[in-house]
Amino acid sequence: AFPGSGVLERLDAGEVVIGDGGFVFALEKRGYVKAGPWTPEAAAEHPEAVRQLHREFLRAGANVMQTFTFYASDDKLENRGNKLSFTGAQINEAACDLAREVANEGDALVAGGVSQTPSYLSCKSETDVKAIFKKQLDVFVKKNVDFLIAEYFEHVEEAVWAVEVLKQTGKPVAACLCVGPEGDMHGVSPGECAVRLVKAGAQIVGVNCHFDPMTCVEAVKMMKEGVEKAGLKAHYMVQPLAYHTPDCSCQGFIDLPEFPFGLEPRILTRWDMHKYAREAYNVGIRFIGGCCGFEPYHIRAVAEELAPERGFLPAASEKHGNWGAGLEMHTKPWVRARARRDYWENLRPASGRPQCASMSVPDGWGVTKGHADLMQQTEATTQDQLKQLFDRSKSH
Amino acid sequence: AFPGSGVLERLDAGEVVIGDGGFVFALEKRGYVKAGPWTPEAAAEHPEAVRQLHREFLRAGANVMQTFTFYASDDKLENRGNKLSFTGAQINEAACDLAREVANEGDALVAGGVSQTPSYLSCKSETDVKAIFKKQLDVFVKKNVDFLIAEYFEHVEEAVWAVEVLKQTGKPVAACLCVGPEGDMHGVSPGECAVRLVKAGAQIVGVNCHFDPMTCVEAVKMMKEGVEKAGLKAHYMVQPLAYHTPDCSCQGFIDLPEFPFGLEPRILTRWDMHKYAREAYNVGIRFIGGCCGFEPYHIRAVAEELAPERGFLPAASEKHGNWGAGLEMHTKPWVRARARRDYWENLRPASGRPQCASMSVPDGWGVTKGHADLMQQTEATTQDQLKQLFDRSKSH
Amino acid sequence: AFPGSGVLERLDAGEVVIGDGGFVFALEKRGYVKAGPWTPEAAAEHPEAVRQLHREFLRAGANVMQTFTFYASDDKLENRGNKLSFTGAQINEAACDLAREVANEGDALVAGGVSQTPSYLSCKSETDVKAIFKKQLDVFVKKNVDFLIAEYFEHVEEAVWAVEVLKQTGKPVAACLCVGPEGDMHGVSPGECAVRLVKAGAQIVGVNCHFDPMTCVEAVKMMKEGVEKAGLKAHYMVQPLAYHTPDCSCQGFIDLPEFPFGLEPRILTRWDMHKYAREAYNVGIRFIGGCCGFEPYHIRAVAEELAPERGFLPAASEKHGNWGAGLEMHTKPWVRARARRDYWENLRPASGRPQCASMSVPDGWGVTKGHADLMQQTEATTQDQLKQLFDRSKSH
Amino acid sequence: AFPGSGVLERLDAGEVVIGDGGFVFALEKRGYVKAGPWTPEAAAEHPEAVRQLHREFLRAGANVMQTFTFYASDDKLENRGNKLSFTGAQINEAACDLAREVANEGDALVAGGVSQTPSYLSCKSETDVKAIFKKQLDVFVKKNVDFLIAEYFEHVEEAVWAVEVLKQTGKPVAACLCVGPEGDMHGVSPGECAVRLVKAGAQIVGVNCHFDPMTCVEAVKMMKEGVEKAGLKAHYMVQPLAYHTPDCSCQGFIDLPEFPFGLEPRILTRWDMHKYAREAYNVGIRFIGGCCGFEPYHIRAVAEELAPERGFLPAASEKHGNWGAGLEMHTKPWVRARARRDYWENLRPASGRPQCASMSVPDGWGVTKGHADLMQQTEATTQDQLKQLFDRSKSH
Repeated sequence: AFPGSGVLERLDAGEVVIGDGGFVFALEKRGYVKAGPWTPEAAAEHPEAVRQLHREFLRAGANVMQTFTFYASDDKLENRGNKLSFTGAQINEAACDLAREVANEGDALVAGGVSQTPSYLSCKSETDVKAIFKKQLDVFVKKNVDFLIAEYFEHVEEAVWAVEVLKQTGKPVAACLCVGPEGDMHGVSPGECAVRLVKAGAQIVGVNCHFDPMTCVEAVKMMKEGVEKAGLKAHYMVQPLAYHTPDCSCQGFIDLPEFPFGLEPRILTRWDMHKYAREAYNVGIRFIGGCCGFEPYHIRAVAEELAPERGFLPAASEKHGNWGAGLEMHTKPWVRARARRDYWENLRPASGRPQCASMSVPDGWGVTKGHADLMQQTEATTQDQLKQLFDRSKSH
Repeated sequence: AFPGSGVLERLDAGEVVIGDGGFVFALEKRGYVKAGPWTPEAAAEHPEAVRQLHREFLRAGANVMQTFTFYASDDKLENRGNKLSFTGAQINEAACDLAREVANEGDALVAGGVSQTPSYLSCKSETDVKAIFKKQLDVFVKKNVDFLIAEYFEHVEEAVWAVEVLKQTGKPVAACLCVGPEGDMHGVSPGECAVRLVKAGAQIVGVNCHFDPMTCVEAVKMMKEGVEKAGLKAHYMVQPLAYHTPDCSCQGFIDLPEFPFGLEPRILTRWDMHKYAREAYNVGIRFIGGCCGFEPYHIRAVAEELAPERGFLPAASEKHGNWGAGLEMHTKPWVRARARRDYWENLRPASGRPQCASMSVPDGWGVTKGHADLMQQTEATTQDQLKQLFDRSKSH
Repeated sequence: AFPGSGVLERLDAGEVVIGDGGFVFALEKRGYVKAGPWTPEAAAEHPEAVRQLHREFLRAGANVMQTFTFYASDDKLENRGNKLSFTGAQINEAACDLAREVANEGDALVAGGVSQTPSYLSCKSETDVKAIFKKQLDVFVKKNVDFLIAEYFEHVEEAVWAVEVLKQTGKPVAACLCVGPEGDMHGVSPGECAVRLVKAGAQIVGVNCHFDPMTCVEAVKMMKEGVEKAGLKAHYMVQPLAYHTPDCSCQGFIDLPEFPFGLEPRILTRWDMHKYAREAYNVGIRFIGGCCGFEPYHIRAVAEELAPERGFLPAASEKHGNWGAGLEMHTKPWVRARARRDYWENLRPASGRPQCASMSVPDGWGVTKGHADLMQQTEATTQDQLKQLFDRSKSH
Repeated sequence: AFPGSGVLERLDAGEVVIGDGGFVFALEKRGYVKAGPWTPEAAAEHPEAVRQLHREFLRAGANVMQTFTFYASDDKLENRGNKLSFTGAQINEAACDLAREVANEGDALVAGGVSQTPSYLSCKSETDVKAIFKKQLDVFVKKNVDFLIAEYFEHVEEAVWAVEVLKQTGKPVAACLCVGPEGDMHGVSPGECAVRLVKAGAQIVGVNCHFDPMTCVEAVKMMKEGVEKAGLKAHYMVQPLAYHTPDCSCQGFIDLPEFPFGLEPRILTRWDMHKYAREAYNVGIRFIGGCCGFEPYHIRAVAEELAPERGFLPAASEKHGNWGAGLEMHTKPWVRARARRDYWENLRPASGRPQCASMSVPDGWGVTKGHADLMQQTEATTQDQLKQLFDRSKSH
């Protein structure tokens, strides 16, 4: 595909499309996002910080600049505790402008993003929930983003509603659930989730967030199998955590006791990312990016691993020797000896924490899939809402 | 001390001065510094990236903007393999301008920094080595930095030379070795090192880099004891790693097999930083900052821990509830239950890496202090140079 | 059931029957069994050592004295490398005498045991393999053991053959595979394995060895579900490892790099055994014992956990306060403070090995169930034998 | 030295003398000793169990059969809570008989052992404490043991008293403290402790129990340096734990949260014992044995490591191939591949416990050496006794 071609043209041509990393976590560490509400008002409040992060991901090899509009639906912004100085529309518009500005500095597309809403979790009607998506979508249309991503949905039902709204624009639509191999919070399998999303009109389906890269790749693989078994066609994407989560239950890293302020020892190395990128590619995923925990160097590692397929290295590789080659210039000879692939590929990094274990026991209200319909009820504040949600879940 | 007062006035008045974090590691992850040479040409090449990092540390509570001039001596820049588009003077000047620009956005001072040179390790003469420092210093004087920091010296002898050069300006001088409780690479104890630095004219002494916070605080404590025992006076500073290094030998994290691309599981949490800040304060250190691995949120944690002493919270705390208070707005009730100090203070975070150990066996040429004079010879390329260095070390 | 009643009468009456522990591993550590061949010639060579171990398990609460006849088939004894001073018949007879002698010191039954044969793995015919079992059985009949156990079979086919032979005596027959939830080496599920064994005439079915207690209990639970779904009836038994094996593949602890000389850090505590005993009881298993790694104090822990159900404590509990109560007499007050159930129930014991990981990567020829038929071919020395075995496996 | 020669003749001749392992822990696991009081009444109550353990250590290569008289002083036996069926004299006599019976089955000596007394900790007078030792000693004289060992003393003062009593018999006297490199509970250094013991008349000095092998060897090395510096002469012995204790404070494994019922993951492998034996030999220790946690196979590993020096393998090695050679007869080829020294020497065994850490935080009243005099007061029940003990400690 030629420069400037759209996401579907690229994927249809067999190209690898590299996504960006997780903005809310990266900007939380930089001091611009508040953990808890996780809302993206920084797009309007501190545009220079958001612009810089976009630019770093672009330099790292990302082809997609996702608008920093996670949790930027009006119902979420209103709920976040302290009042913001900007309206939802202003935040969404600022986010689009920043993404576009940086995308134009390189060969990247702008993707407008919507994510799950408090309205759904409070059992609002399909009409109400869709109206929420529509408001964000109006900004994306006005700002003429290149395509749309519905992501971070724990319930396939709500994701389907989002896709149905986004489809009305005629722009390409990608849809990602934040689920693992056990499926969505109602126990719908990844394969069946994907089928529903494709039938609703998504051209690209996959998962993002909540689980580590290998777990997410496994879930997308199950989606692909489901779609193919149903005789349908789709492209596949994956944007996982940059945290190792071997010990988490069906609700993902939220339930780990370390979430969100003690996850450091779980951060993937760049070499872990090489393995992830290769595995994702091998199972047939072509839109490969990251979510919470991904820093620019993680995306660069994905781009470096897939440089043979893409035919080029990202700009930021000028500051990175392949597989540690830059260490050949280190002052200590035993560090220079580490400038080789097999050293880093086989390293098992120690935690430096002798009084900490390798795995945690996940937290949460319930641990079996049977309790999944209870686990989700976190914004349903009345017994009536809980009952409605429970009844709705049984109707599947 | 009033706004705009100098570093010594602040310290004399008993104020806490908060340093910034480690630029080379943070910018390596953002794609602007090459691991191995670790040189700061990004100050000239990509000023927006360096400016943004300064700003994040300022927002996090830092009172000091260190010029991004680590390893920016001419001998080092020439040695780095591929040719740079900017001269050493251009890089040093750009770094001064960026630090000043952001310092002026808040209540921060600009510190010009020099660090150990290849010339010393290649056994160049005192005159030659001092000339190297002088070149950087000329820029700092021209750009009128507020004070000077000589840091990251493995050999107290070279640090003393640096202090002697920096003193000529009349500006306040701080000096940091990158050593732990075992002392410098010739086995000079922290206490004796500090005495020599104070006698050479440093008003502030301490350690930076190479070891984890608690180890560095211990080493500075030993410096303080040495200075006091010698009947001298000084202020104390500490700028440690943000990595847990219980298993490293006298040469610090360089010798860990994970250096520099597999250190992720060792990264300190923000709660570890609270303990560090309190401990540093308790032993009488008043200039408290960070080095490699420190991200803005680590500095913010230092500032939040010492907010009672300083009387204010940093700007970035508007995006951070104290001790996780922001989680009260999380959607899941069991995550909301984590919005409390004792939860995070007592958490022992798991590594998520069941096939990795807690500690590594340090790498390197030697492991005993007896071999320290061999360990350092990393840029001495001829046998003659080795011999000279060995002889020089015996002269102490 | 009254003293002296048989194993089936006890189980029919709802009693808990407690098995003994693993003789080959315990006697290897005591210096009487050679790791590798694992043969039981000590029954004839060093009867005092075998008798003492029987007695310790009896004191610990075991109701069953298994004859120390593991791998005592003639084909195995001949294969073991160096020549023995005793014949197979002598070893089997001595083992029966020792078990009977100690059983008569308390309320225990004698169980004659057979295990998988090299003949089966070398693709000998059903007739040949059955003849091997028959030779051991002749001794058991002559010595009038109380019942029979066919155990440690990786292939349900061979176990069925063993049951068919043992049934001819009219004595009760128990049958245990050494498999986990993934089933036998041909991929036959635990449920299906159990059905075949019950149909062949086994009154008690279960698993022993190869996996840790919780994994074995899970496999027996699957057996029970299979048997009940088939409309059959049986009693259930479990005799697992005393090693934690979360990381092993379908072939069990044999494939762990630590097998057999580095398993120490995996040894279960007595408190782990309490949890095991309770879990086994809860899923409906009533014959509960141990295999490799079980020492007398592990069996005592099983007996102490199930003392309420059995109505009595074992003899060895006179030297053991319940849940650490004996520590009330310790000289240090902070050790006395450990004399309570919740202390030990919640303790997460450290390994004392900071340079060791929590999990290993299993060794072996293959890791997927698809390769299971190759994995087993360990005594088939010719290509023809391999082919036969492969063909035989496909006939299922 | 010829068979039947005494311990000093053997050591004077440069021979390696191998001790036995820890009886109280081994017999606790076998069901004959109660953790908490840790008294040895089993010598009289269950002689067959004690005899068998002696025999296993003899087969494993031990040259010394220590009488099972640990904590068999009258003041301790009276204190143990429930009444025993045997008198102290009966227990001590039975223990002597058993040790002699088994020693005569091979080339071993009988050592009568005394250990620290409650009387000392209750601040009884030197006369009272010595009278306690004298009572046990009368039995040892009557039963004509070959030499005497005073062991498991936390306070060198009490050990000196014990040596002074034992010396009166004219038999060789060995003396072991249960201390590490930090010295005894009053902070007396290992070197100074050893000097005092040698001056009191001990011909062999060393340490036993409380710490892992490498730590104990280090402490004995310091003893040796102290003795040599004082111009004295002695032989050296070490009988450490078979548990890894990198995390314990000056009072040893008693303070670990896992003591005594959760130590399993810390158990040394046989290969760890090879390293221990070699290290002990290299620092000049010639009486090398074990204490709590040592099973017969651990002693066998010591004997196998030192077989070149001793000129023979122990009897139990007939059931053990050197460095895993017995595995050559294993049925699986990948297990056969483990039959080699470098495999086991380099193995880092996993714990199989992903939710457990590598190190614990030691328990106890105090953690600094400054509080050592408080830490010991565990049997001093009144304030007066505490004061006396404190005053006594200051008199040093």
